Amino acid sequence: MLTGEEYLASLNDGRVTFFEGEEVKNIPEHPVMGTAAQLTAATYDRFHNPEPGAVNLLMTPPRSPGDLRDLIPVLSEADIVTRVTFGSLMALLTAADRLAEAGAGHVDAILGYHDQAKRTDIRITECITDAKGDRGRPPQGQTDPDAYVRVVDRCDEGVVVRGAKLHITGASYGHDLMVMPTKRMSAEAGDYSIACAIPVNAPGVRIINSSYAPRGEDVRHFPHTSHDHMPDGFVVFDDVFVPRDRVFLDGDPQYAAVFAHSLGLWERIGGVSQMTRNAELLVGFAHLIADANGLLGVAHIKDKLAEMIIHATMLRAGLEAALHNAVVTPQGFVHPNELYTNAAKYQGAANYSLMVRHLHDIAGGSLLTAPTIGDLENPQTGGDVRKYMQGRSGVPAENRLRIFHAIRDHTADAYGGWHAATNVLSGGGLYAQRIVASNHFDIEAARAMALADAGIEHWSA
Amino acid sequence: MLTGEEYLASLNDGRVTFFEGEEVKNIPEHPVMGTAAQLTAATYDRFHNPEPGAVNLLMTPPRSPGDLRDLIPVLSEADIVTRVTFGSLMALLTAADRLAEAGAGHVDAILGYHDQAKRTDIRITECITDAKGDRGRPPQGQTDPDAYVRVVDRCDEGVVVRGAKLHITGASYGHDLMVMPTKRMSAEAGDYSIACAIPVNAPGVRIINSSYAPRGEDVRHFPHTSHDHMPDGFVVFDDVFVPRDRVFLDGDPQYAAVFAHSLGLWERIGGVSQMTRNAELLVGFAHLIADANGLLGVAHIKDKLAEMIIHATMLRAGLEAALHNAVVTPQGFVHPNELYTNAAKYQGAANYSLMVRHLHDIAGGSLLTAPTIGDLENPQTGGDVRKYMQGRSGVPAENRLRIFHAIRDHTADAYGGWHAATNVLSGGGLYAQRIVASNHFDIEAARAMALADAGIEHWSA
Amino acid sequence: MLTGEEYLASLNDGRVTFFEGEEVKNIPEHPVMGTAAQLTAATYDRFHNPEPGAVNLLMTPPRSPGDLRDLIPVLSEADIVTRVTFGSLMALLTAADRLAEAGAGHVDAILGYHDQAKRTDIRITECITDAKGDRGRPPQGQTDPDAYVRVVDRCDEGVVVRGAKLHITGASYGHDLMVMPTKRMSAEAGDYSIACAIPVNAPGVRIINSSYAPRGEDVRHFPHTSHDHMPDGFVVFDDVFVPRDRVFLDGDPQYAAVFAHSLGLWERIGGVSQMTRNAELLVGFAHLIADANGLLGVAHIKDKLAEMIIHATMLRAGLEAALHNAVVTPQGFVHPNELYTNAAKYQGAANYSLMVRHLHDIAGGSLLTAPTIGDLENPQTGGDVRKYMQGRSGVPAENRLRIFHAIRDHTADAYGGWHAATNVLSGGGLYAQRIVASNHFDIEAARAMALADAGIEHWSA
Amino acid sequence: MLTGEEYLASLNDGRVTFFEGEEVKNIPEHPVMGTAAQLTAATYDRFHNPEPGAVNLLMTPPRSPGDLRDLIPVLSEADIVTRVTFGSLMALLTAADRLAEAGAGHVDAILGYHDQAKRTDIRITECITDAKGDRGRPPQGQTDPDAYVRVVDRCDEGVVVRGAKLHITGASYGHDLMVMPTKRMSAEAGDYSIACAIPVNAPGVRIINSSYAPRGEDVRHFPHTSHDHMPDGFVVFDDVFVPRDRVFLDGDPQYAAVFAHSLGLWERIGGVSQMTRNAELLVGFAHLIADANGLLGVAHIKDKLAEMIIHATMLRAGLEAALHNAVVTPQGFVHPNELYTNAAKYQGAANYSLMVRHLHDIAGGSLLTAPTIGDLENPQTGGDVRKYMQGRSGVPAENRLRIFHAIRDHTADAYGGWHAATNVLSGGGLYAQRIVASNHFDIEAARAMALADAGIEHWSA
Repeated sequence: MLTGEEYLASLNDGRVTFFEGEEVKNIPEHPVMGTAAQLTAATYDRFHNPEPGAVNLLMTPPRSPGDLRDLIPVLSEADIVTRVTFGSLMALLTAADRLAEAGAGHVDAILGYHDQAKRTDIRITECITDAKGDRGRPPQGQTDPDAYVRVVDRCDEGVVVRGAKLHITGASYGHDLMVMPTKRMSAEAGDYSIACAIPVNAPGVRIINSSYAPRGEDVRHFPHTSHDHMPDGFVVFDDVFVPRDRVFLDGDPQYAAVFAHSLGLWERIGGVSQMTRNAELLVGFAHLIADANGLLGVAHIKDKLAEMIIHATMLRAGLEAALHNAVVTPQGFVHPNELYTNAAKYQGAANYSLMVRHLHDIAGGSLLTAPTIGDLENPQTGGDVRKYMQGRSGVPAENRLRIFHAIRDHTADAYGGWHAATNVLSGGGLYAQRIVASNHFDIEAARAMALADAGIEHWSA
Repeated sequence: MLTGEEYLASLNDGRVTFFEGEEVKNIPEHPVMGTAAQLTAATYDRFHNPEPGAVNLLMTPPRSPGDLRDLIPVLSEADIVTRVTFGSLMALLTAADRLAEAGAGHVDAILGYHDQAKRTDIRITECITDAKGDRGRPPQGQTDPDAYVRVVDRCDEGVVVRGAKLHITGASYGHDLMVMPTKRMSAEAGDYSIACAIPVNAPGVRIINSSYAPRGEDVRHFPHTSHDHMPDGFVVFDDVFVPRDRVFLDGDPQYAAVFAHSLGLWERIGGVSQMTRNAELLVGFAHLIADANGLLGVAHIKDKLAEMIIHATMLRAGLEAALHNAVVTPQGFVHPNELYTNAAKYQGAANYSLMVRHLHDIAGGSLLTAPTIGDLENPQTGGDVRKYMQGRSGVPAENRLRIFHAIRDHTADAYGGWHAATNVLSGGGLYAQRIVASNHFDIEAARAMALADAGIEHWSA
Repeated sequence: MLTGEEYLASLNDGRVTFFEGEEVKNIPEHPVMGTAAQLTAATYDRFHNPEPGAVNLLMTPPRSPGDLRDLIPVLSEADIVTRVTFGSLMALLTAADRLAEAGAGHVDAILGYHDQAKRTDIRITECITDAKGDRGRPPQGQTDPDAYVRVVDRCDEGVVVRGAKLHITGASYGHDLMVMPTKRMSAEAGDYSIACAIPVNAPGVRIINSSYAPRGEDVRHFPHTSHDHMPDGFVVFDDVFVPRDRVFLDGDPQYAAVFAHSLGLWERIGGVSQMTRNAELLVGFAHLIADANGLLGVAHIKDKLAEMIIHATMLRAGLEAALHNAVVTPQGFVHPNELYTNAAKYQGAANYSLMVRHLHDIAGGSLLTAPTIGDLENPQTGGDVRKYMQGRSGVPAENRLRIFHAIRDHTADAYGGWHAATNVLSGGGLYAQRIVASNHFDIEAARAMALADAGIEHWSA
Repeated sequence: MLTGEEYLASLNDGRVTFFEGEEVKNIPEHPVMGTAAQLTAATYDRFHNPEPGAVNLLMTPPRSPGDLRDLIPVLSEADIVTRVTFGSLMALLTAADRLAEAGAGHVDAILGYHDQAKRTDIRITECITDAKGDRGRPPQGQTDPDAYVRVVDRCDEGVVVRGAKLHITGASYGHDLMVMPTKRMSAEAGDYSIACAIPVNAPGVRIINSSYAPRGEDVRHFPHTSHDHMPDGFVVFDDVFVPRDRVFLDGDPQYAAVFAHSLGLWERIGGVSQMTRNAELLVGFAHLIADANGLLGVAHIKDKLAEMIIHATMLRAGLEAALHNAVVTPQGFVHPNELYTNAAKYQGAANYSLMVRHLHDIAGGSLLTAPTIGDLENPQTGGDVRKYMQGRSGVPAENRLRIFHAIRDHTADAYGGWHAATNVLSGGGLYAQRIVASNHFDIEAARAMALADAGIEHWSA
């Protein structure tokens, strides 16, 4: 297993990555991108076991619903790149499970890849969303045929891949890019039905990063994102060669969706887990700031807090139900219940912005206009800040100031905007989430109950 | 155990009960009130066991979370009076549990009463909401001191009770009225702190019934409420004597709330279970009518169906979480988790009217204007009805007609109105439900998470 | 002009109409259908002018935005059949305006018809929604070609019409049925493109009525619908002959939608006006019952009242904006602004059920379980009702009782269900209302503002 | 009248103002604060009239509803500091109108001040929200008596003021700070009942600025806030002397609320006007990005667009109704209708976050992860950006990129967070807005309508 330091060193492997118009030659030392690398490094250290042959717990698939439930809190302790690595591997193995049944794809390559990833303790990011061009048209109907990632050449040793994958969390921070086709594909889309693992430093890979991290000289008034943020990558594959043992699907478009569905499930259960914690975190902020403001006893404040509490509780109920009703496949893999996972994901995404509105309504305008830590330290203004940021006695003004900073950082600045939009868009937007939830509901049982109630024996000819 | 027939006979015990201005001398033979009695009679028959000493499963408290989970589907098979009986007894035993700890109330009387109720297989309705007079004032601050039920006299043999209890489901259909004080009471409210069991036919008890049951000559276009409805009672206690062995609390206002909290919990878990089934039933209706209308493939119809499906799924998740996290008390009683129960109840109540709006939007205007079964049978109009109520081929026009009837009966007529308002109001209105949910949330954990995120070690002096 | 009495007499003209399986031989004397006839009769009397040649104000089209604004309160004083008559004639004249421009349809027949209707002071109901069969298919694609009303025969003197029109408000209470084609039609749907006026008593016309009116012996606890309700008609045209001078469009399917659009506009402005008054009425009920309950000072009650007030105010703002921005056509007709009318209609429909939820939450359970007037009059129970329905001192218990009755009658019984569903469905469901609003928005102006903000000069090639 | 250049020079008047811990010695040259000054300078130039004695249109109060309607689009052309100046002066004059009636306050000082402000063409910012300390306690009940701004000394020449005002838009960009007491005050709060005008450069005034403006080297991917932003001020009054002719109220706490109410009205009508334009702007962005994505024809996209359109239309309807129903006071001043203004403000604030959710759901993830202009210009990545940001053919990739930037800048970054929270919080949070709207609704008319409907003649004793 790698140490954090070894991980940081491994990032200087020749990868080609950009930030706001400039190439980043050394990620760990970059003023913005460097902090994110520390998060993944810290997870390496937290889980490090120096014994030879030791394996990270998060690289090993759970084998029972109990295993799965135990893993959720462990995952919460990891950084997002490590969580994505877990999700990518689980999705790959779930896909292997389904491909094996169908006799399709390259199951041996998948198992071999998983084995090696486990041994080398690498990090893997999931690359699924294509550039898509005109989104009203299929991959094979685009003006530019590269709007979806595709195979442009094949030989015995491997395939050559061209295209781009967008919104790739932590793309510059892993070792491999797990490329998967986007959802269902029709028979004519064979070249677009490609799943494979590509090293980040492979020739032809270029990554343009974007970030919600704060800028400026002194970012101490961003208590969360000053140290905890993760750039997204716009990943370009400019005729990248992929050897056979890293190709998991090539052609067979009827199986293209297997990857996306597998990934979607693991991504959403991770999402629900994070959303639940986040909803509870927002309750905590709301309660603390109402306390500091001296307003815990006011009726309309209690009302809004209660709605935030019920929201957090219903998300946790969805998570609990998804785990208690986890499914074990014939091959012994376990995965969370699809219906509860998707319904909870939808509930969380659809109501998030209202919960933020409640939090802002509880906190008041200082969430936007509170002075900075610099103003607190400046002797010309420090006294003013302390005197006039004081809320109810007992809570130091500085604490109230820091809670305002934290609320703004989480919900009313760049990260807040990224978070709000990501909640809605991850997993394909609210429309896609409605469809997936509908597909897993037992509609026949509901119809039968309704027919019995209406006194109808035979519904249709 | 009683048979259904014995139950029906037992209702003619001299009870004084009224319907729309007239005394009802014989409930089972009354044109409106009689159908409801059949429901409870049918449950007696379904659970009947002729062996001497046999006991109804629903009279026996569950002893483990597993027991409780197994009971939920059994409860769903019972009529509402039987379900209320179960809830009343569970609440009474939960209260005994808490009173025993405090050394308050008459725990022996409770246990003795439960034992006897089990043996005699009676039905019990819960009487909690007082008339309340000016709702801005406490019991002891009213112009009329009887606005809340109170003890007006005491002797060695028992107490004399005066007042009224409102919105009592099935009050005229049980054998005993379980009187409990309404929530918290202050020290001056001693005479209002009264819990006891009063026979329906006790001298001084009068019940005024109200009902959402359909009227008119031919109610076959009400497929549900023509046979399934339950009157509510406005129950008057006109100086009713209650013997000591039926008095569970008298005075000790600091324990008054124990009964209400116990009852609230059992009432709400029953409510969540019914709401979940109802949400699934509405999904069934929506899907059937979209099918009959030929609209299952239309995008905005699928959207609305998906929202109904997600709503039903989140309610079921809440129910699952409440049962999986059931609590066993030191005395060995089990009860559902308060937080999940209350959050799910709120979610169900708050969103019900939107789900009905979706159902109506999917169904279209014939849910209101579909002809009746009489019009279908009348040879002058039957052909017209069949011809012009025909939707997509394959589904007989009569089926479509009956689904429209069922949707109207459930959601757009007297029962629909009763159901919508009851969803919101049972358990004390949305405000009360917000408070109870808030009280059971682990706010300290949420604050701790928020403090850690904001980098604050010591919150307040 | 007719008197109310003359109107009632005119209903016994041989029309064939049914109620719950039985033919109604005499509408004014029918126990349920008779009360509705009195409403229209009363409007006749209110507007009656015995001078020869006098004309009802509501039969005359407004000629300026001011005229139109003045008419709105007059309309509110009329019964619904008279309001529908006004809307039908305005729609017909608006359609004539548009057909004249296109040189299509039979404009002379329309003008002649309007002239005669004005002179004979008749009532006209609008027949637009077809039976529709499989709603996923067009008129000409149905298994039964009569699923949409169509011309089955033509001769020099007129046409023969077959089919059915559904949800026809007051169909049995007018003198003529104004038949119009439903929205857009394709070129192949020529026989379905038929607009004409058909006497209610024409041979081949049959009407099946449905109603939300209360039944039972004593309906005094329905303060509104006991005297104010209007049956809907399921109108069958069984090969009905229509003479040429009553045919307004026959064929020319490209103009079919002109009628529907004209009708939709007038129907919706009437709808917005009624919705606004209704929203204000519900505020009144909420305030009165909170007052009687002694809860006007409670924070969460005030919150819900405020949301109801804001809802009512925004509807009135929509109505004001639609009237202030009324459009005068080149021919001098005036009609309300389409965009504001449709947006306000949507706002009212989408939020109605939430406002009812607020009202119920404010009122409490007695809205469902309040005793009846019969219980109040019965000497055995009258004292109980007075004693225990007493709320805050000063408001008589009987007043509180009657407000509960009125709230239930308006929002939680058959009429409440009819009202809720009709709000959503009139004008074609929320989906249709979204489309119409979108079509009238100045999207180019919004795009130009966005382009300027983003600094883009030329958007597309 | 001043030119823009003269305005910029006037800011270097010795004012003491801070930004992120450092004193700002020269506002126009400060890297962040300088851009905002250009906005106000540009408005000076736009309205400049070199004739001697010329007066800015926005310094002159409207005298008829027509005047007021004409002013609204003029206001939209001005920067926010100028708009605030207009609102402050209108509020001051409206207050004078009311004080004159009551014979309270210093009406002459107000009129004299207005006259001089008009002549010198200065900018004025409104200072209303106090630091407030423990918000559960009144001004006179705080541990620190300075938690609300108060008079600490008085002499014949003037008063000495101490305290702080928070969230002051553009505080560092005006010439005077218009100090007003916050809402109602009780009789004991005399020293807190102070309204006056204080020069920004008066000794003892210190301002700590906060800003949502973007930082970093290259902010061209912030098309709006890179040039359009306005810092908020945390304004400290450290024993500031105010001469008598600038004191408008001192003591007389029963009139303290007159200022807040007057200001609130003018602030909210400005807010509604801006919200309406902003809602239309978001519709424009949604339509452009759906167009560029090739998704304008997709059902669920059209649905979301339609909801945004209806939202924008209802806000405009509220604005129209507020202006059409403007009120002229006995003294000839005109102000917008309070009820419609407040209802529209609430509607806009309550639904804003949902509209942003719709916009994000329509746009997709590239609103977060689109590359920057720097990436577009870098020859290593420019081709990738152009190739893979291409949407439907016809719309250049760069345009799509810029629309994503604009959407992020407006709704998902620092300004988006500021905007969302400000929408809710300006005017005191949703709770305060509900109260104000309720206070201006004609509740008696609504009660009368409800009583008539319920058949009740006399409501209460």
